[in-house]
Amino acid sequence: MKKYVFTPGPVPVPSEVLIEMAKPIIHHRTAEFEEIFAEVREGLKYIYNTAQEVFILSASGTGAMEASVVNTLSRGDKALVINSGKFGERWGKICRAYGVEVEEIMVDWGKEVDPAVIEKALSDDSSIKAVLTQASETSTGVKHPIKEISEITSKRDDVIHIVDGITGVGVFEIAFDEWGVDVLVGGSQKAFMLPPGLSFAAMSEKAWKFYETSDLPKFYFDFKPALKNAEKNTTTFTPAVTLIVGLAAVLRRFKSEGRENMHKRHARLALATREAMKAIGLEPFVQDTPSTALTTVIAPPEIGAAKVVAGLRDEFGITVAGGQDQAKGKIFRISHIGDIDKTDTLSIIAAIESVLNQLGYEFNFGAATKKASEILGTEL
Amino acid sequence: MKKYVFTPGPVPVPSEVLIEMAKPIIHHRTAEFEEIFAEVREGLKYIYNTAQEVFILSASGTGAMEASVVNTLSRGDKALVINSGKFGERWGKICRAYGVEVEEIMVDWGKEVDPAVIEKALSDDSSIKAVLTQASETSTGVKHPIKEISEITSKRDDVIHIVDGITGVGVFEIAFDEWGVDVLVGGSQKAFMLPPGLSFAAMSEKAWKFYETSDLPKFYFDFKPALKNAEKNTTTFTPAVTLIVGLAAVLRRFKSEGRENMHKRHARLALATREAMKAIGLEPFVQDTPSTALTTVIAPPEIGAAKVVAGLRDEFGITVAGGQDQAKGKIFRISHIGDIDKTDTLSIIAAIESVLNQLGYEFNFGAATKKASEILGTEL
Repeated sequence: MKKYVFTPGPVPVPSEVLIEMAKPIIHHRTAEFEEIFAEVREGLKYIYNTAQEVFILSASGTGAMEASVVNTLSRGDKALVINSGKFGERWGKICRAYGVEVEEIMVDWGKEVDPAVIEKALSDDSSIKAVLTQASETSTGVKHPIKEISEITSKRDDVIHIVDGITGVGVFEIAFDEWGVDVLVGGSQKAFMLPPGLSFAAMSEKAWKFYETSDLPKFYFDFKPALKNAEKNTTTFTPAVTLIVGLAAVLRRFKSEGRENMHKRHARLALATREAMKAIGLEPFVQDTPSTALTTVIAPPEIGAAKVVAGLRDEFGITVAGGQDQAKGKIFRISHIGDIDKTDTLSIIAAIESVLNQLGYEFNFGAATKKASEILGTEL
Repeated sequence: MKKYVFTPGPVPVPSEVLIEMAKPIIHHRTAEFEEIFAEVREGLKYIYNTAQEVFILSASGTGAMEASVVNTLSRGDKALVINSGKFGERWGKICRAYGVEVEEIMVDWGKEVDPAVIEKALSDDSSIKAVLTQASETSTGVKHPIKEISEITSKRDDVIHIVDGITGVGVFEIAFDEWGVDVLVGGSQKAFMLPPGLSFAAMSEKAWKFYETSDLPKFYFDFKPALKNAEKNTTTFTPAVTLIVGLAAVLRRFKSEGRENMHKRHARLALATREAMKAIGLEPFVQDTPSTALTTVIAPPEIGAAKVVAGLRDEFGITVAGGQDQAKGKIFRISHIGDIDKTDTLSIIAAIESVLNQLGYEFNFGAATKKASEILGTEL
């Protein structure tokens, strides 16, 4: 059976990129690789919309999340963690593992954080050194107001804003320099359309000031030698060469598409999916601003999400993600990132209709595909 | 120009493995991936010659080195580091970054450590908690007596032996369980014939006892959740899926070749190269037991290694490694790991002869290739 991946990471990798990565390996200490690395550095700065260096880590996104903590904070520092799902929770776990004190703002799953609550928390407790957020909380599909939160932290010299943008960078606008984000983490298996194995991080000048006093132990994830080496178009340790070769290929594609058009692409696919689901009576799980990386849909309660996920898998060879933790069995998640276009999006919507019909859900069969077609038809 | 990689990582990746990794990506939380993961776990245990779990890290070898320290030691512990080159030096840097006190045994580059010196150091200082070594010090090409060192640490309940086997595992015998090694690190871009991006680590029962008291901070590299998840054929964080698919393919190849035959293959290629170089008057850099992962050769001093490396690159498209730090300009290093066979080995030896001849080195042109042919001819 032919397989289709509609998960928010791993995502479909373009065939031409898979082929690029299948070419004979090159050594990382060669002029050839340095040239690729220089190109990749420029491309990442373009996607990040920053003049700062964007570090390439041979590690999953969680590795880069850990790196962003150990390069800025110190033992005993207090961090304000926005916990609105599985990945917000992870920020807390990373901080605690390093002896960073955690104050959590708990946000209901599916809702976005209110910046005023962060403002108040910072005003109430001047010992808070960092606000840790998700640009897009992949477990719920919500998008957080990163710009507004950065406005709050930017007013304070002693507080940085660390953003997990793993499912945000390249998906929608996060203007790193302009907004005053301090650390921004990205991941290869998301908007970058690559296999997992690389993650990214940029540091603001303010974050570098934090680096100077940070006493958390670091070696593999140390950004200072990484910066020194990046400026010479090389890495401190042997990098995941093939993934970087693939990265060069996707960044070329993105340059030709244009950063803003990438954002529009994701937004259009997300809108079409969301409206299609509504057209057949399925409500979005996100009650506030949805991330355009994925659409989270509440399954008909009488059927449950597990049967929808299994039906797509068994009938159509399609992998979508179900819910995690408290959303398990309740929602399914349709991804718009990776090498996914309007044809793919229509196909998954049609497949969902077919599966729901087989599962006995009563609805206007065809209405979802029609709705999506109307939205997608003229734009992409 | 066609390119040839004879570096001790990255190494040539077999075409069939490159193609396997170029197949459409699969999601890591699927039955399909779990099956691959189960196969890979068994294969790694076979190569490691152990009943223990072998962890797969999405990180370079240095990441796994750091992991082996943070999962066993505590702040203020004393570690005995065998520093016989660039990678021994790295053990010291990692330990110090985490507040582990370092006592170094300095070994001249090109020489192996005398186990009696380690025995004495441990007898003199009962506060030493770990001995950190390289199975194969890639910067010099020396092989250290891992078995003998493990015999010493095995007699002590309070000392573990942590081995960087990045250029050793799969290259030559390191009988993890039988010898009593406590932590053994491996890397994908070495004997495993894969691109860089994965590293491996096994822990003995004694090492797990150290884990229980270890207070060094860890999250991404924490082996305890990794063990719990591995037993369910999954990973804690999104793994480098394509590299693991490639790993399954190489492990199948290794199973068919046989572990001992892998060791013999490397030994034979190394012997042929070493003797070939001697036949034209070039001395090995290693004065004791050479690693069979690579052969380090002292370039004719009147020519220097840089010209040999450049000549191979410019005339033949061959990448070999020069020397690092104190060996820079003095030696060049020919790798025997990765998808390299006797034909490849003859080709690099012939190319070296050609380059040396062009550089004005006076020698019996053809003698190296002849010698290598004699050694390789009947065996591989």
